[in-house]
Amino acid sequence: MSAPFVYALPVRFADVDHAGIVYYPRFFHFFHVAFEELWRARVGPRAYSELLDRDRVGFPAVRAECAFLSPLRFGDTAEIEVAVARLGGKSITFRYRIYRAATPEQPRTPSAEGTVVCAVVDLARFVAIPVPERVTALLADLVEKEG
Amino acid sequence: MSAPFVYALPVRFADVDHAGIVYYPRFFHFFHVAFEELWRARVGPRAYSELLDRDRVGFPAVRAECAFLSPLRFGDTAEIEVAVARLGGKSITFRYRIYRAATPEQPRTPSAEGTVVCAVVDLARFVAIPVPERVTALLADLVEKEG
Amino acid sequence: MSAPFVYALPVRFADVDHAGIVYYPRFFHFFHVAFEELWRARVGPRAYSELLDRDRVGFPAVRAECAFLSPLRFGDTAEIEVAVARLGGKSITFRYRIYRAATPEQPRTPSAEGTVVCAVVDLARFVAIPVPERVTALLADLVEKEG
Amino acid sequence: MSAPFVYALPVRFADVDHAGIVYYPRFFHFFHVAFEELWRARVGPRAYSELLDRDRVGFPAVRAECAFLSPLRFGDTAEIEVAVARLGGKSITFRYRIYRAATPEQPRTPSAEGTVVCAVVDLARFVAIPVPERVTALLADLVEKEG
Repeated sequence: MSAPFVYALPVRFADVDHAGIVYYPRFFHFFHVAFEELWRARVGPRAYSELLDRDRVGFPAVRAECAFLSPLRFGDTAEIEVAVARLGGKSITFRYRIYRAATPEQPRTPSAEGTVVCAVVDLARFVAIPVPERVTALLADLVEKEG
Repeated sequence: MSAPFVYALPVRFADVDHAGIVYYPRFFHFFHVAFEELWRARVGPRAYSELLDRDRVGFPAVRAECAFLSPLRFGDTAEIEVAVARLGGKSITFRYRIYRAATPEQPRTPSAEGTVVCAVVDLARFVAIPVPERVTALLADLVEKEG
Repeated sequence: MSAPFVYALPVRFADVDHAGIVYYPRFFHFFHVAFEELWRARVGPRAYSELLDRDRVGFPAVRAECAFLSPLRFGDTAEIEVAVARLGGKSITFRYRIYRAATPEQPRTPSAEGTVVCAVVDLARFVAIPVPERVTALLADLVEKEG
Repeated sequence: MSAPFVYALPVRFADVDHAGIVYYPRFFHFFHVAFEELWRARVGPRAYSELLDRDRVGFPAVRAECAFLSPLRFGDTAEIEVAVARLGGKSITFRYRIYRAATPEQPRTPSAEGTVVCAVVDLARFVAIPVPERVTALLADLVEKEG
């Protein structure tokens, strides 16, 4: 069984909308923050920016979807899990799960679950390229196992 | 044939990310801006805020998905189309299409297409309720016809 | 007497914070949106992006300040005025005033007032340069007159 | 000599603008994030939300200003210092300093410095009230000493 990468992010004062709950597009931002933190934690603070700027490799989103299960509010902490649903030849499907962190009053609660399909592209020519080996290595343990 | 509601929104200086294209979670924000403008255009500037604050009716997103077809950049204008894919008993599925507006050099180009399923809830009790009649009336001409 | 440039911007569902009023950093964003619209309205939709990308001239903020006079809420329309407090040799001081637009119930009300000092820089070398003549021409009528 | 509270925040992929540097209104957001973290670190994750929601005490910004000294980019880490320039009867002036964290190639570098004057208000009546004692206690060691 693989274990996902987890990043805890406090819900900020301005993450909410007029209804007092986290604005739903922010969930996709939370996904991305966890993706950035995966690189920081495993390679270093400039790992992802150097991949883009020096190596000219990028991961534009091709498709994204999310089911919203229960709202998050200011004061909550979002625990964001990153796994890899599919490591393809020229694309990667990330799976994200967001939980409201446990508090003295409430257990840990699922808040959202989604996937983001990213192409792997040469940014200089904006064409799809094979997933670089070091990216495969970085993500290998996050690939979901069947059964 | 029904025609969608259309709202044109300039891509802002800060809508882009480090790769120089509109940050993909912003597309869902663009969807919501067009949704807000639908209310403004058809009922008035406070129509949606009053529905929430006075009538305590809200439309939390239950599920959202988007396919990203071609990037948008600063200087582009996003033309956002709003249609209703399904007007259910206690939920509404909106369909959004975003185009890069035509310029002297380039024709109008599809940029993104997605759907957002919204529950209709009584915000005081946070339970699903039937779609109010005036909401049905507001959206009736946006419902996609078959064939 | 010079007249400012004015741009009306609806307060969006997610512009507010947990206190239900526009998050104060958003006021500086509103300033910038009006600055972008000034270019769009007077030169064209790509005027500012081309200045940056083709001519490599930029206006990074050197100093910004704002007094917050009364809050804005979702449903309000922000009327943003842009004037030029000082057109210097290598910098420009913009003055912004934000009003809550009049409604049937309330008169137009001052909400915020601030200034932003921008350097004019050659983005290729990131050094200050004289204000280009066409920028001076663009802004000339917005310069505040004494008395 | 008092020491400021410090919070380190990675610059995110979408914090930058079309010029590739952190969008200047984001600096004020960074100020606020450090303010939120001060509460989290010293009292607990719900300290500030409970102050607002249960005790109905808020700190709306009355005036904010910032000098931008050197840009931040994606991949940088912002070290945000919070100090109290003035602890008044019914208002608090916070001083924020942002540094680009040291890297193997570059020393720690000042990026921005600003102040935010906050009123202390009873949110139920939206009138200024004296700074609550526990807030004074929370901030006492952050008050800047002369000399």
